[in-house]
Amino acid sequence: MKIVQCVPNFSEGKDKEKIERIVCTLKYKEGFKLVNYEPDPNYNRTVVTLIGDLYAIKNALIPFVEVIESEIDMNLHKGEHLRMGALDVLPFVPINDVTMDECIEVSKEIGREIGEKFNIPVYLYEESATSPDRINLANIRKGEFEGLSKKMEDPLWKPDYGPNEPHNTFGAIAIGARNPLIAFNIDLDTENVEIANTISRYIRNLNGGYRFVKAAGVKLYDRNICQVTMNITDYKKTAMYRVFQTVKFEALRYGIDVKACELIGLVPLDTLLLSLEYYCNCSGINIKAFELKENYSFKVIIEQLEKCMGLYGFNETKIIEYYI
Amino acid sequence: MKIVQCVPNFSEGKDKEKIERIVCTLKYKEGFKLVNYEPDPNYNRTVVTLIGDLYAIKNALIPFVEVIESEIDMNLHKGEHLRMGALDVLPFVPINDVTMDECIEVSKEIGREIGEKFNIPVYLYEESATSPDRINLANIRKGEFEGLSKKMEDPLWKPDYGPNEPHNTFGAIAIGARNPLIAFNIDLDTENVEIANTISRYIRNLNGGYRFVKAAGVKLYDRNICQVTMNITDYKKTAMYRVFQTVKFEALRYGIDVKACELIGLVPLDTLLLSLEYYCNCSGINIKAFELKENYSFKVIIEQLEKCMGLYGFNETKIIEYYI
Repeated sequence: MKIVQCVPNFSEGKDKEKIERIVCTLKYKEGFKLVNYEPDPNYNRTVVTLIGDLYAIKNALIPFVEVIESEIDMNLHKGEHLRMGALDVLPFVPINDVTMDECIEVSKEIGREIGEKFNIPVYLYEESATSPDRINLANIRKGEFEGLSKKMEDPLWKPDYGPNEPHNTFGAIAIGARNPLIAFNIDLDTENVEIANTISRYIRNLNGGYRFVKAAGVKLYDRNICQVTMNITDYKKTAMYRVFQTVKFEALRYGIDVKACELIGLVPLDTLLLSLEYYCNCSGINIKAFELKENYSFKVIIEQLEKCMGLYGFNETKIIEYYI
Repeated sequence: MKIVQCVPNFSEGKDKEKIERIVCTLKYKEGFKLVNYEPDPNYNRTVVTLIGDLYAIKNALIPFVEVIESEIDMNLHKGEHLRMGALDVLPFVPINDVTMDECIEVSKEIGREIGEKFNIPVYLYEESATSPDRINLANIRKGEFEGLSKKMEDPLWKPDYGPNEPHNTFGAIAIGARNPLIAFNIDLDTENVEIANTISRYIRNLNGGYRFVKAAGVKLYDRNICQVTMNITDYKKTAMYRVFQTVKFEALRYGIDVKACELIGLVPLDTLLLSLEYYCNCSGINIKAFELKENYSFKVIIEQLEKCMGLYGFNETKIIEYYI
């Protein structure tokens, strides 16, 4: 079995029945596990995580897209997360006994099938990208669903597969292979989204921040707070704790004491270990990440990160290694 | 007058008489000012700063190189700073009424002259680079003086001007045009240089740190401390205070309280203002950089940074705007 993680993000995070009709196409299948799905009503978006055999997952995706096409109309979609399509993004992440190249190949095969079968424009991104402009998802998604028609008039944005105009109700989709990606949000106790935006610029690569951080500010209306929401694209080189501590000292200038954060979707265990190692060291406990792994259960590691970083909404089922 | 800053670095930082014989070729000349020169005995290197007319400076450089060639033998040189030549690096920085392109052109003209007249291999770097491999000075300098002979056997490292082998006693030289560069060192109260190296990796772009930071660890034997020594290549996007605060929280894990830093050479006033703004904001004083500039003297701004960051060895004559 060529084990991959596949993390489709679709643009519905409120209507529970609709979400169930979409997600049930991925439940109890041979060869892979539907590990979890997290509807987010603020983002109006659901992140699905599949772990299992690359080809078993690939075969399940056509019926999945078919239901999404019939259920979601992007003309009616509103949410706090950038998006350009009903199935917005479809990444393949190599985990075990599978190469990046195999993931790239499958991303292209499924891209061509979706483009042809459903008349949806498909852009290949990250490791699968066919030009430097398309490596970064933000470039592809810029202008979002509403700007897609105009954007696609530019020959630069001819899709890799599918028609040269957006699907009426579906929009477009980004498909690609990539390394594990940490979706990390830090709570800011303020209603002023400008502060979250400014801090995002301080920490993201685009504006001079950390090399492997993409970040933006968002307002969470239901909780009356803002978040710095980010992806860390190489968690070994740009550690989670480092970004957290940086946001912490930047927020000080706005009189904000940063006390909480959350991880969305699954993460490799190392993400947690590298951060816990830092906080242990700061407390005078001279221990390495691999020693934490050998000596402590997932549960203890998570409890300690709750204390050190205010990590909330997390449990051991969100650790990739839990399923292998 | 096309005002530029020109910052030759030569490989002698101990022998005061020798340094004087070299530097006097740049004193009291028409059209530009020798603003300062800072011999560093640990680095065994002197950083010279010239401010003035691009062409006046250019004309003074041939006699300058001539004296360096006769005074410095790189076979005898030892120091804590990476180097590959007697005049190691010669950058031109546009300041006022001059374009980057004009600086690039002059860097090429003087490069050709030095290469031909003295038989010294010349590599163009940064904005003047003739291939992507040569943009980053670290790539060119890798292997240092001692490794130059072997390195130049590779056709990839054929110099832009001059002979295809190192000068016997001079080595080679990097010449180019670039944006203002902040040479910033942070003191770590430890004799363990491995800690300084590790923290350097945390903050530099190469290993996932800040986009516009190049950093390394060094040990200062005379003071029994180490430093994180760095160049910030875009001080507006990667602010000095941000790097300082990051080194501060990373050092905590080694039980080190970071309390002091220094700036080498001249810096634009904005570097100071952007950092002071942060510390003012953290103290509850809601003031912007431009307001600090309008309301406070250079002296007051520097005094405040001494308090906030332990900035030492700095005064108003190190601010570029002091000379314009």
